[in-house]
Amino acid sequence: MTASQTPLCLEDIRATAERIGPFARRTSVLSSRRVNEWLGCKAVFKCENFQRTGAFKFRGACNAVMSLSDAEAVRGVVTHSSGNHGAALAEAARLRRVPAHVVMPSNAPPVKRAAVESYGANVTECAPTPSAREETAARVIAATGATLIHPYDDLRIIAGQATAALELHQDASDLEVVVCPVGGGGLAAGTALATHLFDPNCKVILGEPQAVDDAYRSLRLGQIVPVESAVTIADGLKTSLGELTFPVIQQHVERIVTVSEAEIVEAMRFVWTRMKIVIEPSSAVAVAAVRKHRDRLAGKRVGVILSGGNVDLDHLPWG
Amino acid sequence: MTASQTPLCLEDIRATAERIGPFARRTSVLSSRRVNEWLGCKAVFKCENFQRTGAFKFRGACNAVMSLSDAEAVRGVVTHSSGNHGAALAEAARLRRVPAHVVMPSNAPPVKRAAVESYGANVTECAPTPSAREETAARVIAATGATLIHPYDDLRIIAGQATAALELHQDASDLEVVVCPVGGGGLAAGTALATHLFDPNCKVILGEPQAVDDAYRSLRLGQIVPVESAVTIADGLKTSLGELTFPVIQQHVERIVTVSEAEIVEAMRFVWTRMKIVIEPSSAVAVAAVRKHRDRLAGKRVGVILSGGNVDLDHLPWG
Repeated sequence: MTASQTPLCLEDIRATAERIGPFARRTSVLSSRRVNEWLGCKAVFKCENFQRTGAFKFRGACNAVMSLSDAEAVRGVVTHSSGNHGAALAEAARLRRVPAHVVMPSNAPPVKRAAVESYGANVTECAPTPSAREETAARVIAATGATLIHPYDDLRIIAGQATAALELHQDASDLEVVVCPVGGGGLAAGTALATHLFDPNCKVILGEPQAVDDAYRSLRLGQIVPVESAVTIADGLKTSLGELTFPVIQQHVERIVTVSEAEIVEAMRFVWTRMKIVIEPSSAVAVAAVRKHRDRLAGKRVGVILSGGNVDLDHLPWG
Repeated sequence: MTASQTPLCLEDIRATAERIGPFARRTSVLSSRRVNEWLGCKAVFKCENFQRTGAFKFRGACNAVMSLSDAEAVRGVVTHSSGNHGAALAEAARLRRVPAHVVMPSNAPPVKRAAVESYGANVTECAPTPSAREETAARVIAATGATLIHPYDDLRIIAGQATAALELHQDASDLEVVVCPVGGGGLAAGTALATHLFDPNCKVILGEPQAVDDAYRSLRLGQIVPVESAVTIADGLKTSLGELTFPVIQQHVERIVTVSEAEIVEAMRFVWTRMKIVIEPSSAVAVAAVRKHRDRLAGKRVGVILSGGNVDLDHLPWG
């Protein structure tokens, strides 16, 4: 794939930014002297924890929902992501006044179900297995005609997530490196594309939990390695790369830095304490990656995308 | 006191803003749809939790330290506030490269001492009584010639704190009400003065813990009522009003709204959850006051000063 073969061009991303502009928040870009000292570079943080529904996921979900034809939209949308994508899709559907169906395993934490329902989604329970999930989603689609919106392996989603990096480049010029976390790769591919198209000299580095290093291994092997174990505090990053996201990452990402669970918690706590913002563990993965890679990033202008801020305040990973 | 008799004029506050401009952070003004729904008004939040040293206190301390003559400054500054003012004064002194002495009771939490020391202050321990504190401070002054910087009853401090409201009015126009917490009254008097001078039609309301409602009772009685009990989670608000702050509050504050401990914790948790920012209980007092007073504030444009974000993450008031 050459530059001209990227699945999206800069105009696509700009058009997406315009499409979601009335709904998505142009999030703050913050910095902190103390954090810079800790990281050894000049970091700016794109605060997607301030995004509607508390995570960057709203950008992609909103773009997907607003891109539907009226005939499609009226039949609703469906997903079986019970995390931030589920909440984001529900909110985007609510804004278009169409139904959202979220398929959730019967053993999902009540707090997650309550969050998705608080945005107005219809929750359909299923047995906690991948096949039950797919079957249940298929049943919802058959009954309603709703459109399945994949959480990351969808160009509308990737274009939506790319708008975060686009705004970051617009608001913080001359970044030398942009860092974000990688799970299924929607944010990672969007960030890599936006960065490549907006400023080809700027490198993209991804942070990934060591415990779920499938993206790291995929890059080394040159093919998608599926997630096997998924025991990490960064619960937004437990998914395998997709057919659309992997080649973009392969082409436009400089490197993946893996971080331990302890490093994730340390970075999360450091950001809470010094920046006074609430970030979720997945966001902290990107910060921890910058810290871990600090010898090579020393003194550089680094943009970090803080992916979200949805945490359970009753179960914090310290104390 | 009439408008012409205010102890500071708008030019004083503007000059203060310029003096501290190279050091203090012009903090973000954030808003949240969800929080607006909860409060029933159009609220904007001045994020002094993002201020240097994590609280608005840096503004006043910086103004005081930068206002000293070189001959005064070289002998250093001293305070016996072990909270945010102590840290702020230490940081301001560090920036002017002069010594800061902080007198702390021997039973102060180690985390507070560590915070003050992390900004480079010399900590002098004393017995945990008011008289020991005063004596120890007097001893430091006798030995060093350092200048005592009162945490709130000092015009340089009040002018410094006033710059937060000045920026708020500049960045969020046409506010109908500004709300901040009241302890000793430095922030409250500064906010009231800046608001009166910048936009005389805008009212100022203060939030105060019911458990330490000395300011509320002082306004009713027409004279300073000292703090008696001081059992509140809002540990920044346990001080009595001062001779300088009380008359300003008396003249320019519309009303004081007192809130329960449960209301403070509820507001704190709501802001953390919905706005993804870390605020300390004293900040939450202002938010809780808006919520409590929501019938009279319905639909209004309300500016809320979030005073700080210094909390002990190992001891949160929930869960």
